[in-house]
Amino acid sequence: MRIITLLSDFGSASPYPAEMQAVLRARCRATVVDITHDIPAHDILHGAYVLAAAAHRFPAGTVHLAVVDPEVGTSRLPLAIAAGGQFFVGPDNGLLMVAARQLGGPRAFAIDADRFASRPLSHTFHGRDLFAPVAAALAEGLPINVVGAPAGAPTELPEFAPERSTGLLRGQVLYRDSFGNLITNIPGPWLGDLTDRLTLGYGGRRAIARRVRTYGDGAAGTVVVLEGSSGTVEIAVPSGSAAARLGLGAGERIALKVWRSRRA
Amino acid sequence: MRIITLLSDFGSASPYPAEMQAVLRARCRATVVDITHDIPAHDILHGAYVLAAAAHRFPAGTVHLAVVDPEVGTSRLPLAIAAGGQFFVGPDNGLLMVAARQLGGPRAFAIDADRFASRPLSHTFHGRDLFAPVAAALAEGLPINVVGAPAGAPTELPEFAPERSTGLLRGQVLYRDSFGNLITNIPGPWLGDLTDRLTLGYGGRRAIARRVRTYGDGAAGTVVVLEGSSGTVEIAVPSGSAAARLGLGAGERIALKVWRSRRA
Amino acid sequence: MRIITLLSDFGSASPYPAEMQAVLRARCRATVVDITHDIPAHDILHGAYVLAAAAHRFPAGTVHLAVVDPEVGTSRLPLAIAAGGQFFVGPDNGLLMVAARQLGGPRAFAIDADRFASRPLSHTFHGRDLFAPVAAALAEGLPINVVGAPAGAPTELPEFAPERSTGLLRGQVLYRDSFGNLITNIPGPWLGDLTDRLTLGYGGRRAIARRVRTYGDGAAGTVVVLEGSSGTVEIAVPSGSAAARLGLGAGERIALKVWRSRRA
Repeated sequence: MRIITLLSDFGSASPYPAEMQAVLRARCRATVVDITHDIPAHDILHGAYVLAAAAHRFPAGTVHLAVVDPEVGTSRLPLAIAAGGQFFVGPDNGLLMVAARQLGGPRAFAIDADRFASRPLSHTFHGRDLFAPVAAALAEGLPINVVGAPAGAPTELPEFAPERSTGLLRGQVLYRDSFGNLITNIPGPWLGDLTDRLTLGYGGRRAIARRVRTYGDGAAGTVVVLEGSSGTVEIAVPSGSAAARLGLGAGERIALKVWRSRRA
Repeated sequence: MRIITLLSDFGSASPYPAEMQAVLRARCRATVVDITHDIPAHDILHGAYVLAAAAHRFPAGTVHLAVVDPEVGTSRLPLAIAAGGQFFVGPDNGLLMVAARQLGGPRAFAIDADRFASRPLSHTFHGRDLFAPVAAALAEGLPINVVGAPAGAPTELPEFAPERSTGLLRGQVLYRDSFGNLITNIPGPWLGDLTDRLTLGYGGRRAIARRVRTYGDGAAGTVVVLEGSSGTVEIAVPSGSAAARLGLGAGERIALKVWRSRRA
Repeated sequence: MRIITLLSDFGSASPYPAEMQAVLRARCRATVVDITHDIPAHDILHGAYVLAAAAHRFPAGTVHLAVVDPEVGTSRLPLAIAAGGQFFVGPDNGLLMVAARQLGGPRAFAIDADRFASRPLSHTFHGRDLFAPVAAALAEGLPINVVGAPAGAPTELPEFAPERSTGLLRGQVLYRDSFGNLITNIPGPWLGDLTDRLTLGYGGRRAIARRVRTYGDGAAGTVVVLEGSSGTVEIAVPSGSAAARLGLGAGERIALKVWRSRRA
């Protein structure tokens, strides 16, 4: 039995996730897994990286229905994307493409709303009225090229690619998790270039940070950097919140440098 | 395989939803779908409208177990209701009847606690000890009239019916969603009576509101009204929260009028 | 089909619960039930009692995967425990043993990470890379003694055992639920020793509390004590929050005494 995952910024207290579930249950027999419905409202970047962290671990054939869609009902395209043996359905605003690129070889199609939308098609809830019917059809085995015409170049999120030079790494915070850990786009193995004691630079400020292997290796309340569970550099404060301590959030740029005493 | 949905104000951080799940899993083989467990504590009105938004979209035979039950363990009746081919189980306090009326032809039965309750029956958690066993039995095909004697007139929520007159619509906010959108009981098509520029009156105050088709058609930070995804009028603030901006919440009355310049 | 439950402090907004789900879905065909992912960060005591409240109600053969694991990646052992026909998988920090003791006859095994861990094994996410593979294997029928060597004495949480003497009960708050009710470890039937009007002592302070049968029997805003749905004494404020009103939380000691007028 195929799996359909759901990700949205609808809020788990709202009726909207259940309305999508109801459409899926009425149309297909897939197992439905909620990734989360608590993406911060309209935060496409956050949603894109949470989706990318989870999607590639699901079995082949999984359909990911993702909706962070501030432009719902306007001219933005509805997309279905095949990538690495899995499927993505949602708006053309960059939400899907990080995960799709990670899975490899994305092929995007513009959903034919005339053919797939429920009647009436609301202007404000395509997750229920358009994306869910398409996700159900894909889970039942519909070939993706039947969904609509190939879409040229799907929207991609602007990304500041990570950089390395001698004793220096640069990158970007992708999102914060609920512990307040800051997940960056700097490859974890690059930390091997640096010393254990580091300077973290961000927004014109600096903090001393220690490189550790896991949270429990750092002293409570101090800033540590480590290779996180997604394989990229993570900034954490053991027994605390790095996001709160540093005032840092998604999208901000950071630098990690080998620490040198001012007297040296 | 039948579906059982769960809705409550227990909080998704509490053990109570899982305790209900455990009882259901031990007694039947239904697919269990959480609508939400984050209804504001004791807010029967909010719970009733979230349930109504989702319930009618589920397939025939679905059993909805809903618990917002401040009077648990007192003399309030435990109910099972059949309506439009679906079933509702929960307290007799108005929570179930909005959805049941929407589905059509509700027939209510007072649950025979002596026959269906787990032993011991707690005084504070009928969701687990009484409603879950009944929901499991209905999902396994028990005829609803076996559950107990017909219940006369189930409790209904007070409702301020929407009204229309020339250039004027009146209604009530039913609930706010997690974006801060305010969902009212005014039928969406009634907006066709009005101009694009409107006056929103509420609690002795006024705001200018623009009628739009979808959120993305309004300017960020302005008040807009539109036909929402449940088919009723919704008040929103694009890229913001109408609930926070206007200080409006569930149960409050509103009026929408054709805007006229004072000089005209 | 076996059931796997999930409990963690990962936050339902994070990608981590879905990453565990993905591993389970790829490795076994169990039904997966989320108990909660919103245990307060690193709060092992809270997690242990939420797990204990729900676990024993699931059917025989259920596998409970629980992760509140501030020492992940250090020398703390990874455990699998069989108890009362069910299974527990998680860190050796006391999280699992309250529920396992409640189910009876716990037998603990130290998981052989070399044999069961995903490659690469992250240092920060054993829930996904080590515990989920073991939970999936147990759900598929792997005998638990194959998981690793018997573990001597698993870590247990310090507990202040409840005490009773004439007209006096003493105990500890185990956790607060989302209504602000305070669940203690004092057996509910012990309330029968006391009068209806009581003095609640806590942290050098006192409050008058009335013994009731259920929330609806107490006046709004007053402090009541009752036998809660887990069978232990619960402190509540009808239409309010006992936790907020009294400033009380998990781990704090309380006393309940027969109230006597000062003049008597």
